[in-house]
Amino acid sequence: MNLNNIISTIRHKKSFLCVGLDPVLESIPEHLLQEDDPVFMFNKYIIDATRDLCVAYKPNLAFYEKLGPSGIKSLKKTIDYISDDHFIIADAKRSDIFNSAKMYADTFYDYLGCDAVTVSPYMGVDAVQPFLRKNKWAILLIATSNPGACDIQNIITDSGNPLYLDVVQNSMNWSDYNNIMFVVGATRPLELSLIRKKAPDHFFLVPGVGAQGGDLKQVCDNAMNDSCGLLINMSRSILYANSGKEFYKYSREVCLATQAEMEVILREKKII
Amino acid sequence: MNLNNIISTIRHKKSFLCVGLDPVLESIPEHLLQEDDPVFMFNKYIIDATRDLCVAYKPNLAFYEKLGPSGIKSLKKTIDYISDDHFIIADAKRSDIFNSAKMYADTFYDYLGCDAVTVSPYMGVDAVQPFLRKNKWAILLIATSNPGACDIQNIITDSGNPLYLDVVQNSMNWSDYNNIMFVVGATRPLELSLIRKKAPDHFFLVPGVGAQGGDLKQVCDNAMNDSCGLLINMSRSILYANSGKEFYKYSREVCLATQAEMEVILREKKII
Repeated sequence: MNLNNIISTIRHKKSFLCVGLDPVLESIPEHLLQEDDPVFMFNKYIIDATRDLCVAYKPNLAFYEKLGPSGIKSLKKTIDYISDDHFIIADAKRSDIFNSAKMYADTFYDYLGCDAVTVSPYMGVDAVQPFLRKNKWAILLIATSNPGACDIQNIITDSGNPLYLDVVQNSMNWSDYNNIMFVVGATRPLELSLIRKKAPDHFFLVPGVGAQGGDLKQVCDNAMNDSCGLLINMSRSILYANSGKEFYKYSREVCLATQAEMEVILREKKII
Repeated sequence: MNLNNIISTIRHKKSFLCVGLDPVLESIPEHLLQEDDPVFMFNKYIIDATRDLCVAYKPNLAFYEKLGPSGIKSLKKTIDYISDDHFIIADAKRSDIFNSAKMYADTFYDYLGCDAVTVSPYMGVDAVQPFLRKNKWAILLIATSNPGACDIQNIITDSGNPLYLDVVQNSMNWSDYNNIMFVVGATRPLELSLIRKKAPDHFFLVPGVGAQGGDLKQVCDNAMNDSCGLLINMSRSILYANSGKEFYKYSREVCLATQAEMEVILREKKII
Protein backbone atom coordinates (compact mmCIF):
# COMPACT_ATOMS: atom_id res chain seq x y z
CA MET A 1 0.00 0.00 0.00
CA ASN A 2 1.54 3.35 -1.01
CA LEU A 3 1.15 6.83 0.48
CA ASN A 4 -1.69 7.83 -1.86
CA ASN A 5 -3.63 4.66 -1.05
CA ILE A 6 -3.36 5.41 2.65
CA ILE A 7 -4.44 9.03 2.30
CA SER A 8 -7.38 8.20 0.03
CA THR A 9 -8.55 5.45 2.40
CA ILE A 10 -8.49 7.94 5.27
CA ARG A 11 -10.55 10.44 3.23
CA HIS A 12 -12.99 7.78 2.10
CA LYS A 13 -13.55 6.27 5.56
CA LYS A 14 -13.28 9.60 7.38
CA SER A 15 -11.12 7.79 9.88
CA PHE A 16 -7.44 7.46 10.71
CA LEU A 17 -7.95 4.74 13.28
CA CYS A 18 -5.62 1.76 13.60
CA VAL A 19 -6.93 -1.15 15.67
CA GLY A 20 -4.26 -2.97 17.66
CA LEU A 21 -4.89 -6.71 17.54
CA ASP A 22 -3.34 -7.78 20.85
CA PRO A 23 -5.23 -10.85 22.03
CA VAL A 24 -4.62 -12.08 25.58
CA LEU A 25 -6.09 -15.48 26.40
CA GLU A 26 -6.89 -14.35 29.95
CA SER A 27 -8.95 -11.41 28.63
CA ILE A 28 -10.75 -13.06 25.70
CA PRO A 29 -14.47 -13.66 26.41
CA GLU A 30 -14.80 -17.05 28.02
CA HIS A 31 -17.16 -18.62 25.50
CA LEU A 32 -14.49 -18.28 22.79
CA LEU A 33 -12.02 -20.44 24.69
CA GLN A 34 -13.92 -23.53 23.54
CA GLU A 35 -13.17 -22.72 19.89
CA ASP A 36 -10.38 -24.53 18.03
CA ASP A 37 -8.48 -21.29 17.62
CA PRO A 38 -9.76 -18.78 20.21
CA VAL A 39 -7.20 -16.15 19.22
CA PHE A 40 -8.23 -16.15 15.58
CA MET A 41 -11.95 -16.23 16.46
CA PHE A 42 -11.55 -13.28 18.81
CA ASN A 43 -9.69 -11.31 16.11
CA LYS A 44 -12.30 -12.29 13.51
CA TYR A 45 -15.13 -10.86 15.61
CA ILE A 46 -13.12 -7.69 16.23
CA ILE A 47 -12.26 -7.30 12.53
CA ASP A 48 -15.87 -7.87 11.41
CA ALA A 49 -17.08 -5.28 13.93
CA THR A 50 -14.50 -2.62 13.04
CA ARG A 51 -13.37 -3.00 9.44
CA ASP A 52 -15.47 -0.15 8.00
CA LEU A 53 -14.36 2.21 10.77
CA CYS A 54 -10.57 1.80 10.68
CA VAL A 55 -7.87 2.10 8.04
CA ALA A 56 -5.23 -0.12 9.65
CA TYR A 57 -4.73 -3.14 11.88
CA LYS A 58 -1.66 -3.62 14.03
CA PRO A 59 -0.98 -7.03 15.58
CA ASN A 60 1.81 -6.89 18.19
CA LEU A 61 4.03 -9.93 17.71
CA ALA A 62 4.67 -10.35 21.46
CA PHE A 63 1.08 -11.51 21.96
CA TYR A 64 1.32 -14.21 19.29
CA GLU A 65 4.85 -15.46 19.94
CA LYS A 66 3.93 -16.11 23.55
CA LEU A 67 1.60 -18.85 22.31
CA GLY A 68 4.34 -20.74 20.47
CA PRO A 69 3.86 -22.14 16.94
CA SER A 70 0.05 -22.03 17.27
CA GLY A 71 0.24 -18.28 17.91
CA ILE A 72 2.01 -17.76 14.59
CA LYS A 73 -0.69 -19.82 12.88
CA SER A 74 -3.41 -17.69 14.49
CA LEU A 75 -1.60 -14.54 13.36
CA LYS A 76 -1.31 -15.74 9.77
CA LYS A 77 -5.01 -16.68 9.66
CA THR A 78 -5.86 -13.26 11.10
CA ILE A 79 -3.83 -11.38 8.50
CA ASP A 80 -5.26 -13.51 5.69
CA TYR A 81 -8.73 -12.64 6.97
CA ILE A 82 -8.12 -8.87 6.84
CA SER A 83 -8.88 -7.56 3.36
CA ASP A 84 -6.29 -5.92 1.10
CA ASP A 85 -7.74 -2.47 1.59
CA HIS A 86 -6.46 -2.24 5.16
CA PHE A 87 -2.92 -1.22 6.02
CA ILE A 88 -1.42 -4.04 8.10
CA ILE A 89 1.38 -3.23 10.52
CA ALA A 90 3.48 -5.95 12.15
CA ASP A 91 4.31 -4.33 15.47
CA ALA A 92 7.51 -6.30 15.92
CA LYS A 93 10.01 -3.57 16.87
CA ARG A 94 12.79 -5.53 15.21
CA SER A 95 16.34 -4.48 14.39
CA ASP A 96 19.26 -6.62 13.26
CA ILE A 97 22.25 -6.65 10.91
CA PHE A 98 21.37 -6.55 7.21
CA ASN A 99 21.21 -10.31 6.58
CA SER A 100 18.99 -11.02 9.56
CA ALA A 101 16.85 -7.92 9.06
CA LYS A 102 16.22 -9.14 5.52
CA MET A 103 14.95 -12.43 6.95
CA TYR A 104 12.56 -10.55 9.21
CA ALA A 105 11.39 -8.51 6.20
CA ASP A 106 10.80 -11.76 4.27
CA THR A 107 8.82 -13.11 7.22
CA PHE A 108 6.60 -10.08 7.70
CA TYR A 109 6.11 -9.12 4.05
CA ASP A 110 6.25 -12.39 2.09
CA TYR A 111 5.14 -15.01 4.59
CA LEU A 112 2.66 -13.04 6.69
CA GLY A 113 1.60 -10.45 4.11
CA CYS A 114 2.01 -7.26 6.14
CA ASP A 115 2.47 -3.77 4.67
CA ALA A 116 4.70 -2.35 7.37
CA VAL A 117 6.95 -3.33 10.27
CA THR A 118 7.91 -1.30 13.34
CA VAL A 119 11.72 -1.09 13.55
CA SER A 120 14.11 0.15 16.23
CA PRO A 121 16.53 2.67 14.68
CA TYR A 122 19.41 2.13 17.14
CA MET A 123 21.40 -0.14 14.76
CA GLY A 124 21.37 2.39 11.90
CA VAL A 125 20.62 2.33 8.21
CA ASP A 126 21.49 -1.26 7.31
CA ALA A 127 19.05 -2.58 9.94
CA VAL A 128 16.26 -0.52 8.33
CA GLN A 129 17.03 -0.90 4.63
CA PRO A 130 15.63 -4.43 4.13
CA PHE A 131 12.21 -3.13 5.21
CA LEU A 132 12.17 -0.34 2.57
CA ARG A 133 10.62 -2.27 -0.31
CA LYS A 134 8.30 -0.70 -2.86
CA ASN A 135 4.87 -0.05 -1.27
CA LYS A 136 6.18 -1.37 2.08
CA TRP A 137 7.04 0.66 5.15
CA ALA A 138 9.55 0.78 7.97
CA ILE A 139 7.90 2.50 10.94
CA LEU A 140 10.76 3.72 13.13
CA LEU A 141 10.52 3.92 16.91
CA ILE A 142 11.24 7.59 17.57
CA ALA A 143 9.49 8.81 20.73
CA THR A 144 7.63 5.91 22.29
CA SER A 145 4.71 6.08 24.72
CA ASN A 146 6.22 4.17 27.68
CA PRO A 147 7.30 5.85 30.94
CA GLY A 148 11.01 5.05 30.50
CA ALA A 149 11.14 6.24 26.89
CA CYS A 150 13.00 9.45 27.72
CA ASP A 151 15.93 7.58 29.37
CA ILE A 152 17.66 7.32 26.00
CA GLN A 153 15.41 9.06 23.45
CA ASN A 154 15.64 12.47 25.14
CA ILE A 155 19.39 12.54 25.74
CA ILE A 156 20.58 15.90 24.39
CA THR A 157 23.15 15.55 21.63
CA ASP A 158 25.88 17.95 20.51
CA SER A 159 23.44 19.35 17.92
CA GLY A 160 21.54 20.76 20.90
CA ASN A 161 18.57 18.55 20.07
CA PRO A 162 17.16 15.56 21.91
CA LEU A 163 18.35 12.29 20.37
CA TYR A 164 14.93 11.44 18.89
CA LEU A 165 15.15 14.51 16.60
CA ASP A 166 18.62 13.46 15.45
CA VAL A 167 17.20 10.02 14.66
CA VAL A 168 14.46 11.66 12.57
CA GLN A 169 17.11 13.75 10.80
CA ASN A 170 19.30 10.68 10.16
CA SER A 171 16.41 8.67 8.81
CA MET A 172 15.94 11.27 6.07
CA ASN A 173 19.23 10.02 4.60
CA TRP A 174 17.86 6.46 4.63
CA SER A 175 14.66 7.09 2.67
CA ASP A 176 11.72 9.51 2.63
CA TYR A 177 8.06 9.80 3.64
CA ASN A 178 7.12 7.33 0.94
CA ASN A 179 8.28 4.35 2.97
CA ILE A 180 9.26 5.58 6.39
CA MET A 181 6.84 6.48 9.18
CA PHE A 182 7.57 7.35 12.81
CA VAL A 183 6.19 5.97 16.07
CA VAL A 184 5.42 8.92 18.34
CA GLY A 185 3.41 8.34 21.51
CA ALA A 186 0.21 10.27 22.25
CA THR A 187 1.60 10.72 25.75
CA ARG A 188 4.37 12.97 24.34
CA PRO A 189 2.74 16.21 23.09
CA LEU A 190 5.96 18.24 22.92
CA GLU A 191 7.69 15.53 20.90
CA LEU A 192 4.69 15.28 18.56
CA SER A 193 4.93 18.94 17.63
CA LEU A 194 8.74 19.10 17.40
CA ILE A 195 8.89 16.00 15.21
CA ARG A 196 6.09 17.37 13.02
CA LYS A 197 8.12 20.56 12.51
CA LYS A 198 11.16 18.55 11.43
CA ALA A 199 9.18 16.08 9.29
CA PRO A 200 6.16 17.89 7.84
CA ASP A 201 5.23 15.12 5.40
CA HIS A 202 5.86 11.86 7.27
CA PHE A 203 3.04 9.79 8.69
CA PHE A 204 3.17 9.14 12.44
CA LEU A 205 1.87 5.96 14.03
CA VAL A 206 0.56 7.16 17.40
CA PRO A 207 -0.02 4.68 20.22
CA GLY A 208 -1.11 5.72 23.68
CA VAL A 209 -4.63 7.07 23.05
CA GLY A 210 -7.18 5.27 25.21
CA ALA A 211 -5.88 2.94 27.91
CA GLN A 212 -2.53 4.75 28.13
CA GLY A 213 -4.21 8.15 28.63
CA GLY A 214 -3.27 10.17 25.49
CA ASP A 215 -5.80 12.68 24.14
CA LEU A 216 -6.90 12.41 20.49
CA LYS A 217 -7.74 16.08 19.97
CA GLN A 218 -4.44 17.21 21.46
CA VAL A 219 -2.49 14.78 19.26
CA CYS A 220 -4.20 16.19 16.16
CA ASP A 221 -3.57 19.80 17.22
CA ASN A 222 0.09 19.00 17.66
CA ALA A 223 0.83 16.77 14.72
CA MET A 224 -1.82 16.59 12.00
CA ASN A 225 -0.70 17.76 8.55
CA ASP A 226 -2.55 18.55 5.29
CA SER A 227 -2.82 14.87 4.39
CA CYS A 228 -3.77 13.87 7.94
CA GLY A 229 -0.32 12.37 8.59
CA LEU A 230 -1.55 10.34 11.55
CA LEU A 231 -2.57 6.78 12.27
CA ILE A 232 -3.96 6.60 15.80
CA ASN A 233 -3.65 3.18 17.36
CA MET A 234 -6.04 1.92 20.01
CA SER A 235 -5.89 -1.60 21.38
CA ARG A 236 -7.15 -2.43 24.87
CA SER A 237 -9.97 0.15 24.96
CA ILE A 238 -11.44 -1.44 21.81
CA LEU A 239 -10.61 -5.12 22.31
CA TYR A 240 -11.70 -5.38 25.92
CA ALA A 241 -14.61 -2.92 25.96
CA ASN A 242 -16.77 -5.79 27.24
CA SER A 243 -16.26 -9.44 28.12
CA GLY A 244 -19.72 -10.84 27.36
CA LYS A 245 -20.94 -12.89 24.42
CA GLU A 246 -21.60 -9.75 22.39
CA PHE A 247 -18.28 -8.09 23.22
CA TYR A 248 -17.74 -7.10 19.61
CA LYS A 249 -20.77 -4.79 19.70
CA TYR A 250 -19.10 -2.80 22.48
CA SER A 251 -15.85 -2.76 20.52
CA ARG A 252 -17.78 -1.34 17.60
CA GLU A 253 -19.33 1.33 19.82
CA VAL A 254 -15.87 2.53 20.87
CA CYS A 255 -14.77 2.60 17.22
CA LEU A 256 -17.91 4.41 16.11
CA ALA A 257 -17.39 7.11 18.73
CA THR A 258 -13.72 7.42 17.77
CA GLN A 259 -14.46 7.57 14.06
CA ALA A 260 -17.08 10.27 14.67
CA GLU A 261 -14.57 12.30 16.65
CA MET A 262 -12.01 11.81 13.87
CA GLU A 263 -14.49 12.91 11.20
CA VAL A 264 -15.11 16.19 13.05
CA ILE A 265 -11.37 16.82 13.28
CA LEU A 266 -10.79 15.97 9.60
CA ARG A 267 -13.51 18.47 8.63
CA GLU A 268 -12.17 21.15 10.96
CA LYS A 269 -8.72 20.75 9.42
CA LYS A 270 -10.30 20.77 5.93
CA ILE A 271 -8.84 17.38 5.03
CA ILE A 272 -12.27 16.16 3.95
CA MET B 1 22.66 -19.44 34.95
CA ASN B 2 24.34 -16.83 37.15
CA LEU B 3 27.62 -14.95 36.75
CA ASN B 4 29.64 -17.47 38.77
CA ASN B 5 28.30 -20.37 36.72
CA ILE B 6 29.35 -18.63 33.52
CA ILE B 7 32.83 -17.82 34.79
CA SER B 8 33.45 -21.30 36.16
CA THR B 9 32.26 -22.89 32.91
CA ILE B 10 34.73 -20.72 30.99
CA ARG B 11 37.58 -21.78 33.31
CA HIS B 12 36.58 -25.42 33.15
CA LYS B 13 36.25 -25.57 29.36
CA LYS B 14 39.12 -23.13 28.71
CA SER B 15 36.84 -21.51 26.18
CA PHE B 16 34.62 -18.43 25.93
CA LEU B 17 33.14 -19.42 22.60
CA CYS B 18 29.47 -18.93 21.77
CA VAL B 19 28.20 -20.80 18.73
CA GLY B 20 25.55 -18.94 16.74
CA LEU B 21 22.85 -21.35 15.62
CA ASP B 22 21.65 -19.60 12.46
CA PRO B 23 20.42 -22.31 10.10
CA VAL B 24 19.67 -21.34 6.50
CA LEU B 25 17.86 -23.98 4.43
CA GLU B 26 19.82 -22.96 1.31
CA SER B 27 23.13 -23.57 3.11
CA ILE B 28 22.33 -26.74 5.05
CA PRO B 29 24.04 -29.84 3.58
CA GLU B 30 21.74 -31.31 0.95
CA HIS B 31 21.37 -34.77 2.46
CA LEU B 32 19.71 -33.27 5.57
CA LEU B 33 16.88 -31.76 3.53
CA GLN B 34 15.23 -35.19 3.34
CA GLU B 35 14.88 -35.31 7.13
CA ASP B 36 11.54 -34.52 8.80
CA ASP B 37 13.03 -31.48 10.48
CA PRO B 38 16.22 -30.49 8.62
CA VAL B 39 16.76 -27.40 10.77
CA PHE B 40 16.74 -29.35 14.01
CA MET B 41 18.88 -32.13 12.55
CA PHE B 42 21.46 -29.62 11.31
CA ASN B 43 21.56 -27.97 14.75
CA LYS B 44 21.80 -31.36 16.45
CA TYR B 45 24.90 -32.31 14.44
CA ILE B 46 26.46 -28.90 15.18
CA ILE B 47 25.66 -29.16 18.91
CA ASP B 48 27.05 -32.69 19.18
CA ALA B 49 30.23 -31.61 17.41
CA THR B 50 30.81 -28.48 19.48
CA ARG B 51 29.28 -28.87 22.94
CA ASP B 52 32.53 -29.58 24.78
CA LEU B 53 34.27 -26.66 23.11
CA CYS B 54 31.80 -23.82 23.68
CA VAL B 55 30.10 -22.29 26.71
CA ALA B 56 27.09 -20.77 24.97
CA TYR B 57 24.72 -21.18 22.05
CA LYS B 58 22.96 -18.26 20.39
CA PRO B 59 20.08 -18.93 18.03
CA ASN B 60 19.05 -15.81 16.09
CA LEU B 61 15.26 -15.67 15.97
CA ALA B 62 15.19 -14.20 12.45
CA PHE B 63 16.35 -17.54 11.03
CA TYR B 64 13.57 -19.51 12.73
CA GLU B 65 10.68 -17.07 12.32
CA LYS B 66 11.29 -17.02 8.58
CA LEU B 67 10.15 -20.66 8.53
CA GLY B 68 6.77 -19.93 10.13
CA PRO B 69 5.32 -22.12 12.92
CA SER B 70 7.60 -25.03 12.02
CA GLY B 71 10.65 -22.83 12.58
CA ILE B 72 9.53 -22.15 16.15
CA LYS B 73 9.08 -25.90 16.68
CA SER B 74 12.61 -26.55 15.38
CA LEU B 75 13.95 -23.86 17.69
CA LYS B 76 12.23 -25.32 20.73
CA LYS B 77 13.51 -28.81 19.92
CA THR B 78 16.99 -27.37 19.48
CA ILE B 79 16.97 -25.59 22.84
CA ASP B 80 15.57 -28.67 24.58
CA TYR B 81 18.44 -30.66 23.06
CA ILE B 82 21.14 -28.33 24.45
CA SER B 83 22.06 -29.37 27.98
CA ASP B 84 21.55 -27.14 31.02
CA ASP B 85 25.25 -26.46 31.38
CA HIS B 86 25.30 -24.21 28.33
CA PHE B 87 24.29 -20.56 28.43
CA ILE B 88 21.50 -20.11 25.86
CA ILE B 89 20.99 -16.69 24.31
CA ALA B 90 17.87 -15.85 22.31
CA ASP B 91 19.26 -13.35 19.83
CA ALA B 92 15.96 -11.59 19.34
CA LYS B 93 16.92 -7.90 19.70
CA ARG B 94 13.50 -7.13 21.14
CA SER B 95 12.23 -3.97 22.80
CA ASP B 96 8.67 -3.03 23.70
CA ILE B 97 6.57 -1.35 26.39
CA PHE B 98 6.55 -3.14 29.74
CA ASN B 99 3.47 -5.34 29.14
CA SER B 100 4.64 -6.58 25.77
CA ALA B 101 8.28 -6.91 26.83
CA LYS B 102 7.05 -9.12 29.66
CA MET B 103 5.33 -11.35 27.12
CA TYR B 104 8.57 -11.66 25.18
CA ALA B 105 10.38 -12.52 28.42
CA ASP B 106 7.75 -15.21 29.14
CA THR B 107 8.26 -16.58 25.63
CA PHE B 108 12.04 -16.73 25.74
CA TYR B 109 12.49 -17.77 29.36
CA ASP B 110 9.44 -19.88 30.23
CA TYR B 111 8.34 -21.30 26.90
CA LEU B 112 11.69 -21.71 25.12
CA GLY B 113 13.94 -22.07 28.16
CA CYS B 114 16.65 -19.53 27.28
CA ASP B 115 18.98 -17.87 29.81
CA ALA B 116 19.33 -14.53 28.08
CA VAL B 117 17.75 -12.30 25.44
CA THR B 118 19.36 -9.56 23.35
CA VAL B 119 17.43 -6.31 23.86
CA SER B 120 17.54 -2.92 22.14
CA PRO B 121 17.96 -0.18 24.77
CA TYR B 122 16.32 2.66 22.78
CA MET B 123 12.97 2.40 24.64
CA GLY B 124 14.56 2.76 28.09
CA VAL B 125 14.32 0.97 31.40
CA ASP B 126 10.78 -0.39 31.29
CA ALA B 127 11.51 -2.20 28.02
CA VAL B 128 14.48 -3.94 29.68
CA GLN B 129 13.12 -4.64 33.18
CA PRO B 130 10.97 -7.70 32.31
CA PHE B 131 14.13 -9.48 31.14
CA LEU B 132 15.97 -8.95 34.45
CA ARG B 133 14.81 -12.04 36.30
CA LYS B 134 16.97 -13.93 38.78
CA ASN B 135 19.67 -15.91 36.91
CA LYS B 136 18.43 -14.48 33.59
CA TRP B 137 20.09 -11.82 31.47
CA ALA B 138 19.25 -8.85 29.30
CA ILE B 139 22.05 -8.41 26.76
CA LEU B 140 21.80 -4.82 25.58
CA LEU B 141 22.72 -3.74 22.06
CA ILE B 142 25.41 -1.13 22.68
CA ALA B 143 27.90 -0.97 19.81
CA THR B 144 26.85 -3.43 17.14
CA SER B 145 29.02 -4.97 14.43
CA ASN B 146 27.12 -3.80 11.33
CA PRO B 147 28.44 -1.09 8.97
CA GLY B 148 25.63 1.40 9.76
CA ALA B 149 25.90 0.99 13.53
CA CYS B 150 27.60 4.34 14.04
CA ASP B 151 24.72 6.29 12.41
CA ILE B 152 22.98 6.54 15.77
CA GLN B 153 25.22 4.80 18.33
CA ASN B 154 28.15 7.21 17.83
CA ILE B 155 26.21 10.47 17.91
CA ILE B 156 28.04 12.68 20.41
CA THR B 157 25.86 13.75 23.32
CA ASP B 158 26.09 16.80 25.56
CA SER B 159 28.15 14.73 28.01
CA GLY B 160 30.87 14.81 25.34
CA ASN B 161 30.60 11.04 24.94
CA PRO B 162 29.27 8.99 22.07
CA LEU B 163 25.69 7.83 22.70
CA TYR B 164 26.68 4.20 23.27
CA LEU B 165 28.66 5.19 26.38
CA ASP B 166 25.67 7.13 27.70
CA VAL B 167 23.55 4.02 27.16
CA VAL B 168 26.05 1.97 29.16
CA GLN B 169 25.98 4.62 31.90
CA ASN B 170 22.15 4.67 31.92
CA SER B 171 21.91 0.90 32.10
CA MET B 172 23.84 0.97 35.36
CA ASN B 173 20.75 2.55 36.92
CA TRP B 174 18.63 -0.31 35.57
CA SER B 175 20.61 -3.20 37.05
CA ASP B 176 24.22 -4.39 37.33
CA TYR B 177 26.67 -6.89 35.86
CA ASN B 178 24.75 -9.74 37.48
CA ASN B 179 22.03 -9.65 34.87
CA ILE B 180 23.04 -7.19 32.19
CA MET B 181 25.59 -7.84 29.44
CA PHE B 182 26.47 -5.68 26.44
CA VAL B 183 26.67 -6.49 22.74
CA VAL B 184 29.87 -4.94 21.38
CA GLY B 185 31.05 -5.87 17.89
CA ALA B 186 34.52 -7.29 17.26
CA THR B 187 34.68 -4.85 14.35
CA ARG B 188 34.76 -1.92 16.82
CA PRO B 189 38.06 -2.02 18.72
CA LEU B 190 37.89 1.54 20.05
CA GLU B 191 34.39 0.98 21.40
CA LEU B 192 35.48 -2.30 23.01
CA SER B 193 38.17 -0.58 25.06
CA LEU B 194 36.12 2.52 25.95
CA ILE B 195 33.16 0.43 27.09
CA ARG B 196 35.47 -1.85 29.09
CA LYS B 197 36.85 1.23 30.86
CA LYS B 198 33.33 2.37 31.77
CA ALA B 199 32.09 -1.13 32.70
CA PRO B 200 35.01 -3.12 34.12
CA ASP B 201 32.87 -6.02 35.39
CA HIS B 202 30.19 -6.55 32.74
CA PHE B 203 30.33 -9.42 30.30
CA PHE B 204 30.34 -8.48 26.60
CA LEU B 205 28.75 -10.63 23.91
CA VAL B 206 31.00 -10.05 20.91
CA PRO B 207 29.78 -10.88 17.42
CA GLY B 208 31.80 -10.17 14.30
CA VAL B 209 34.77 -12.54 14.71
CA GLY B 210 35.08 -14.85 11.72
CA ALA B 211 32.90 -14.13 8.69
CA GLN B 212 32.53 -10.43 9.60
CA GLY B 213 36.31 -9.95 9.88
CA GLY B 214 36.91 -9.16 13.58
CA ASP B 215 40.14 -10.39 15.20
CA LEU B 216 39.95 -12.54 18.36
CA LYS B 217 43.31 -11.54 19.82
CA GLN B 218 42.64 -7.84 19.32
CA VAL B 219 39.21 -8.16 20.98
CA CYS B 220 40.81 -9.79 24.02
CA ASP B 221 43.55 -7.17 24.25
CA ASN B 222 40.92 -4.44 24.22
CA ALA B 223 38.22 -5.87 26.41
CA MET B 224 39.12 -8.95 28.45
CA ASN B 225 38.87 -8.52 32.23
CA ASP B 226 40.00 -10.63 35.21
CA SER B 227 37.00 -12.96 34.89
CA CYS B 228 37.32 -13.14 31.09
CA GLY B 229 34.27 -10.89 30.61
CA LEU B 230 33.81 -11.98 27.00
CA LEU B 231 31.62 -14.35 25.07
CA ILE B 232 32.83 -14.49 21.48
CA ASN B 233 30.13 -15.46 19.03
CA MET B 234 30.90 -17.20 15.75
CA SER B 235 28.18 -18.43 13.43
CA ARG B 236 28.79 -18.78 9.71
CA SER B 237 32.47 -19.75 9.93
CA ILE B 238 31.49 -22.71 12.14
CA LEU B 239 28.12 -23.72 10.67
CA TYR B 240 29.11 -23.62 7.04
CA ALA B 241 32.74 -24.74 7.26
CA ASN B 242 31.85 -27.52 4.82
CA SER B 243 28.74 -28.65 2.95
CA GLY B 244 29.43 -32.37 2.65
CA LYS B 245 27.98 -35.31 4.58
CA GLU B 246 30.55 -34.90 7.32
CA PHE B 247 30.17 -31.12 7.60
CA TYR B 248 30.09 -31.32 11.39
CA LYS B 249 33.67 -32.60 11.52
CA TYR B 250 34.80 -29.40 9.80
CA SER B 251 32.69 -27.35 12.20
CA ARG B 252 34.43 -29.10 15.05
CA GLU B 253 37.84 -28.34 13.50
CA VAL B 254 37.04 -24.62 13.48
CA CYS B 255 35.87 -24.78 17.11
CA LEU B 256 38.93 -26.79 18.17
CA ALA B 257 41.26 -24.21 16.62
CA THR B 258 39.30 -21.37 18.22
CA GLN B 259 39.22 -23.05 21.64
CA ALA B 260 42.98 -23.63 21.45
CA GLU B 261 43.53 -19.97 20.63
CA MET B 262 41.25 -19.00 23.52
CA GLU B 263 43.11 -21.29 25.93
CA VAL B 264 46.40 -19.60 25.09
CA ILE B 265 44.86 -16.17 25.70
CA LEU B 266 43.24 -17.27 28.99
CA ARG B 267 46.63 -18.52 30.20
CA GLU B 268 48.43 -15.38 29.06
CA LYS B 269 45.93 -13.26 30.98
CA LYS B 270 46.24 -15.60 33.98
CA ILE B 271 42.54 -16.39 34.04
CA ILE B 272 43.30 -20.12 34.09
